[in-house]
Amino acid sequence: MFSTVLIANRGEIALRVARTCRELGIRTVAVCSDPDRESAVTRFVDECVRIGPAAPRRSYLNAAAVITAALQVGADAVHPGYGFLSEDPDFAEICETAGLTFVGPSSSLLAKLGDKARAREIAREAGLPVLPGSPETLETVGQAKSVAAAIGYPVIIKAVAGGGGRGMTVVRDPRDLSGAFLEARAGAQAAFGDARLYAERYLENARHIEVQILGDGEGEVVQLGERDCSVQRRRQKLLEETPAPGLPRELADRICAAAVHSARELDYAGAGTYEFLVDQDGGFYLMEVNCRIQVEHPVTELVTGVDLVREQLRVAAGYGLSIRQEDIAPRGVSIECRVNAEDPERGFLPTPGVVEEFSAPGGPFVRVDTHGFPGLRVTADYDPLLAKVAVWAPDRRQAIERADRALGEFRVAGRGMSTTREFLREVLADATFRAAKHTTGLVGDLKPAEVRRTGARRASCPS
Amino acid sequence: MFSTVLIANRGEIALRVARTCRELGIRTVAVCSDPDRESAVTRFVDECVRIGPAAPRRSYLNAAAVITAALQVGADAVHPGYGFLSEDPDFAEICETAGLTFVGPSSSLLAKLGDKARAREIAREAGLPVLPGSPETLETVGQAKSVAAAIGYPVIIKAVAGGGGRGMTVVRDPRDLSGAFLEARAGAQAAFGDARLYAERYLENARHIEVQILGDGEGEVVQLGERDCSVQRRRQKLLEETPAPGLPRELADRICAAAVHSARELDYAGAGTYEFLVDQDGGFYLMEVNCRIQVEHPVTELVTGVDLVREQLRVAAGYGLSIRQEDIAPRGVSIECRVNAEDPERGFLPTPGVVEEFSAPGGPFVRVDTHGFPGLRVTADYDPLLAKVAVWAPDRRQAIERADRALGEFRVAGRGMSTTREFLREVLADATFRAAKHTTGLVGDLKPAEVRRTGARRASCPS
Repeated sequence: MFSTVLIANRGEIALRVARTCRELGIRTVAVCSDPDRESAVTRFVDECVRIGPAAPRRSYLNAAAVITAALQVGADAVHPGYGFLSEDPDFAEICETAGLTFVGPSSSLLAKLGDKARAREIAREAGLPVLPGSPETLETVGQAKSVAAAIGYPVIIKAVAGGGGRGMTVVRDPRDLSGAFLEARAGAQAAFGDARLYAERYLENARHIEVQILGDGEGEVVQLGERDCSVQRRRQKLLEETPAPGLPRELADRICAAAVHSARELDYAGAGTYEFLVDQDGGFYLMEVNCRIQVEHPVTELVTGVDLVREQLRVAAGYGLSIRQEDIAPRGVSIECRVNAEDPERGFLPTPGVVEEFSAPGGPFVRVDTHGFPGLRVTADYDPLLAKVAVWAPDRRQAIERADRALGEFRVAGRGMSTTREFLREVLADATFRAAKHTTGLVGDLKPAEVRRTGARRASCPS
Repeated sequence: MFSTVLIANRGEIALRVARTCRELGIRTVAVCSDPDRESAVTRFVDECVRIGPAAPRRSYLNAAAVITAALQVGADAVHPGYGFLSEDPDFAEICETAGLTFVGPSSSLLAKLGDKARAREIAREAGLPVLPGSPETLETVGQAKSVAAAIGYPVIIKAVAGGGGRGMTVVRDPRDLSGAFLEARAGAQAAFGDARLYAERYLENARHIEVQILGDGEGEVVQLGERDCSVQRRRQKLLEETPAPGLPRELADRICAAAVHSARELDYAGAGTYEFLVDQDGGFYLMEVNCRIQVEHPVTELVTGVDLVREQLRVAAGYGLSIRQEDIAPRGVSIECRVNAEDPERGFLPTPGVVEEFSAPGGPFVRVDTHGFPGLRVTADYDPLLAKVAVWAPDRRQAIERADRALGEFRVAGRGMSTTREFLREVLADATFRAAKHTTGLVGDLKPAEVRRTGARRASCPS
């Protein structure tokens, strides 16, 4: 196994990765930006290297600084977490060049799947269903108009370099297309340094169903069941659960099998997620493949008992997977709630500030992944995720009651800081959610005015 | 289901019970002593009633005050937790008289099993193996001497009203018997208001194996596997795990079956634990039956997925058990570590004080049950248990690594306060423990001088 792993991330996921490293006897080194010098991560790890100021481009997205840190501390591997450099093929390639093992798929696979338009074509060719869309990237307004007319409205215009809910715009009326296209192009250039766009048919009232897979890079791929992540605001997940409620098992199994089939074709290595939209007739369509650990991975861990980060490290270190498909027997139901420092009453606008009170829930069947503590300064530079509260129960009703109990006992407050805690409890209490009849429209239905007011184009937390 | 439950306890178990009540939609009322007015429990529950000063006899052991509080708040049931009034047949009877449901076995069963000498006879008659011992209570030194000579040294002299490791003295040399007997009698009178004693053969190098059962009070009894609680200081448990490592499955199954057989004969209602000593030849002998939830119940919950407090409440409310034996499929391994405010270097002497730093572990497969927070005042009046850190893993090796990781990240400190945190890590690292070859002598072997110095007669935490 590796002797030293550099964790190229921050917040709860850096802590998450460090915990498994510690259990494996691996020395943990974190990188940090200036404001993260006194964090739960830096307290936990064996060593921390300062790599730059707050701005992500100058720290956590600064590949050169991260590589330098890794080489300085004698790391033999780099775990990128999620977001930041985690799906950057160039970064993976530099790691390879520098003699560092990148914990994730190869740079060439990241390049293939990171180009969302190309990934769509790869998937289509492998027999995975995709929504009607543009066969190639859209260069002009005219081209966008004719493609949109061909696939039918509403359409969703997506940045080729986007993903995880970022860089997307829905167009319902042909008259809005031209403006939306130009705005999306400018936005994609600004956010990703890549102006390329593509379009797909937009599915209303769909469910977001995704499949967790693990591959050993030599053609062996297992699936660990599906997750329902339909509770979203601005296409960003707020609450996730497994198994997907109200989805016929036979359909879920077919979706899982489709993901495994595709991942086998790609000789997928490590942890990955196939994200699908499922319509009300049971049709399912690939949206994208996420080549990294995801925010919502704990629900899968809670029902399967598999430590996904451990499997990532095993595969990266050449030990292969510790589990076979027949060993994976999900038990019960798990729900994860994301407690973010943002204001549901104001369109989930982040509310930076200093955490003054912080007491996480505990007790039976509750798992908390957090980097929070009293005194934590939440800045606008980063993801507003404060804590993930995940629960397990034998059935969905108990899981909902438990999640509500856990959120209820969570004491988190700060000057000027709002959180999603109470809003998540409203979701848990919602009749449509309880009946498992909700779609990605749920949050909008619960808070129509506020959500619509702020619109859909602010960058936010990954996946 | 009940509408209001009064929780007649404090600390982590009061919180544990309140959490499940909350999930069931039950209004929670706690009682508290003066120093517990500002506690994690009083913050959590819907209402709190002050019942007396710090001294347990004037608060948590004050049956009249507890009953009065329960009636005042309109409770329909009383959950006693562990320790305090939890196995007091008189208290259970007063509850019954007052129209309050006592969450536990009937007062008559508590009376039978609470008299440890009588319980021994009941078990023996039901065919459960017990160690050679006195057929009745010992009245005189002469009687004690002749019984001890008959059963053979070493013997253990136990208080009839003791249990859970309290009120026990080992005598290895016949010349010590007289003094030990008189001292034990005085001690039993002082601690329990009942001077009666009995004697048993004392097993050296035995393992403490116990079986968790649940009964519906109508003859239906299920077992949820065994726990190994051999890591003890002064016959008080420090670390517990399930399944019992290194115990042949066939033997463990026989022990579980014996417990079920006995509990069926008794029409056992609620949660109970059959405690056995297992010798190196695979012989097993009943020590006692604990008629309540136990400190170490989380390990059973983590491997079975069963919420034991929920089952207690269901049975008490007349709904029976939610599970059948065939539904119980333990998965993986769980270890619980008790982080107590006591000093392993000074014979595990409690170290009262104020908690200044408190940050509990979290992340994958870690469960923490605690009433701790920065500012908590730990007094000599109560059990020094600060937190139970329980972990789950697919196998024992990973569980040990995870427990060590979790303890390692636990930040708990206070002026003049020592904790068992680091000592527990020594246990986890010990070769004998890792090889699962340890017995109840482990802690003594690790710290012989300190443990022996303080002796075995200080009252401490239950179970």
